[in-house]
Amino acid sequence: MNWEYVQPVRIIFGNGQIKKLTSEIAKLNGSNGLLVTTAGFVRRGMAARILQLSGGTIKQVYSAVSPNPTVEECDNCSSILRDNQCDFVVALGGGSVIDCAKAAATFGLTSCAATDFLGTGKAIPQQHLPIIAMPTTSGTASEVTCVSVLSDHNRGIKSPMNSYGFYPTVAIVDPELTLTVPPHLTATTGFDVLCHAIEAYWSVNHQPVCSTLAVHAAHLALTNLRQAYKHGDDLAARENMAEASVTAGLAFTLPKTTSAHACSYPLTNLLGIAHGEACAMTITHFIRFNANHGCERVVQLAHKLGYEDAEALANAIDGMREDTGMLLDLKSFHLDNTQLEQLIQGSKHPNLRNNPVPVSEQDLREMYESMI
Amino acid sequence: MNWEYVQPVRIIFGNGQIKKLTSEIAKLNGSNGLLVTTAGFVRRGMAARILQLSGGTIKQVYSAVSPNPTVEECDNCSSILRDNQCDFVVALGGGSVIDCAKAAATFGLTSCAATDFLGTGKAIPQQHLPIIAMPTTSGTASEVTCVSVLSDHNRGIKSPMNSYGFYPTVAIVDPELTLTVPPHLTATTGFDVLCHAIEAYWSVNHQPVCSTLAVHAAHLALTNLRQAYKHGDDLAARENMAEASVTAGLAFTLPKTTSAHACSYPLTNLLGIAHGEACAMTITHFIRFNANHGCERVVQLAHKLGYEDAEALANAIDGMREDTGMLLDLKSFHLDNTQLEQLIQGSKHPNLRNNPVPVSEQDLREMYESMI
Repeated sequence: MNWEYVQPVRIIFGNGQIKKLTSEIAKLNGSNGLLVTTAGFVRRGMAARILQLSGGTIKQVYSAVSPNPTVEECDNCSSILRDNQCDFVVALGGGSVIDCAKAAATFGLTSCAATDFLGTGKAIPQQHLPIIAMPTTSGTASEVTCVSVLSDHNRGIKSPMNSYGFYPTVAIVDPELTLTVPPHLTATTGFDVLCHAIEAYWSVNHQPVCSTLAVHAAHLALTNLRQAYKHGDDLAARENMAEASVTAGLAFTLPKTTSAHACSYPLTNLLGIAHGEACAMTITHFIRFNANHGCERVVQLAHKLGYEDAEALANAIDGMREDTGMLLDLKSFHLDNTQLEQLIQGSKHPNLRNNPVPVSEQDLREMYESMI
Repeated sequence: MNWEYVQPVRIIFGNGQIKKLTSEIAKLNGSNGLLVTTAGFVRRGMAARILQLSGGTIKQVYSAVSPNPTVEECDNCSSILRDNQCDFVVALGGGSVIDCAKAAATFGLTSCAATDFLGTGKAIPQQHLPIIAMPTTSGTASEVTCVSVLSDHNRGIKSPMNSYGFYPTVAIVDPELTLTVPPHLTATTGFDVLCHAIEAYWSVNHQPVCSTLAVHAAHLALTNLRQAYKHGDDLAARENMAEASVTAGLAFTLPKTTSAHACSYPLTNLLGIAHGEACAMTITHFIRFNANHGCERVVQLAHKLGYEDAEALANAIDGMREDTGMLLDLKSFHLDNTQLEQLIQGSKHPNLRNNPVPVSEQDLREMYESMI
């Protein structure tokens, strides 16, 4: 088979490794940086710690990134970068913060707004400022991907942009940063990791380097998420989930996600279900669906993960969903027919075509009907 | 545990993918390239094919690279690059060719000679021309590493140089290029792959991304080398060995090789044993040695590869050595005490310290004595 692999992000992993920020800024010859983060990290003193580690080279802070970052927030970052002629960007936060910073690090070198590119198909300029990404959740793995997801409420869209220039220069993955993530967020982001790994493995674009890392990541997530959820202060579990997250990131960036992620978008946009919980909502359905439709890779994956068959893998994940308080169905939403139809139509996201078995509108209908 | 990962080489893998050379040169805006290869590839018409694929952008050919490339050969390449103001380098060949091209792509931008850096510890300049590496054996994986091994006969040294700038820009791994590799070379290069994978896994510098890929590569090599050796025209076996080679390359570049590679250097330099065969010479000894000295990772590796224990893994590899006509001992060399001593002293290569269990001079002596 033919495949390609590229992964330009240098990864620094380990407890306490945020201290490497100092030397990493020096390697970039950075002297005038912007920290992109959230108000919470400013409040909890983490932003101050980062500024201290930067030795005065970070001169600006943008801390107004929201959970679903908007084009306006990205443009605000771009303006700061432009107006102050910044020479590097540090992102401290979850996927939202890193996504926002990645896009701004490119657009800040232009006179463009995010709306010029989001959902327009216009070619994204390749020049960009160097980014040091420091994830604070084990979830999106935005620190090793070239994707930035932004929302434009005026046009009613939330959409990913892809650009090679969006790859951070360095990802500093410090599991200690995740110790304070509350249980529910640990679970939702953790299921995002698990879905990245499973979907990367069975994606129609699967390839051996990514598949190998996908199995590793899925195994870690399956054996550590429960513990990280129940005992957030268990550093070993946090470390394993952080390793799962970043290796799942390496695993899915190229093959892309598939059915569970495709369905997650309307579940989040229409019903407000958190991203990872929305992915978890359909992943076990698609494990069974793919297996029942002759997809060998899902059976292979189950075996590699130590399960007898795909059904056993799906059951194990369903058990973990239950134990971590994830939504198990959509009954509590009391959906009417219009909403059901919106869910079905919204699930026809391009990533659905990466599922190893074609998923028809009728398949989606039957799945959602079984959930309400 | 703390670890780092970086892999800046873009990999294009697949049968017939050398045709991508055309678009890859275009991506580099290359207009004045040098092809580094061997006389054999010129004779067999492969060099002509590459020139054709380059659409006239390759204007120089250097085809005098020897199996153990010398500082003079590297300097000759550098001179061509310098004198013709070349803007890219294509390497077509095994590790020797790619190693020579990698060093020249850096030194050709300077007025330096390879002897300025080889074995001197002098910092290697970071600026370099882009390199497109096209391996023709499944072995060294030089196409994805930042190492160049050159020989300086005047000073009697053969030594590796490491530089971030030595990473090729692109590796085009086309398994069809390996179809004509004769059986003995298939076996020796194949054992190099297997040793890269095993040693990467147990290296004291092991880290999870590399370990995961190491298991994948070792599994492929263990299950395909015999077939590629016996039936060189089996494209599936060749493809699997090429995948094993490049993934083993990703696996060992950072953790580095260990005991078997350390011992291979004097076995090659003093006795002329081919590199991979020299690695195979001691790998099963070190599997047993490490297991007997309480190294858990070698037992773990054996389990992950489907063997009951390290002894079973060692036995399987010994069987494969026998079946592929590898040297099983050193009896035929009728070594005298001086030579034995040279072997022992030569094996104290820095990589020996990467072995998970310390290897003393006495350990080396007992090992070599058991072989003569």
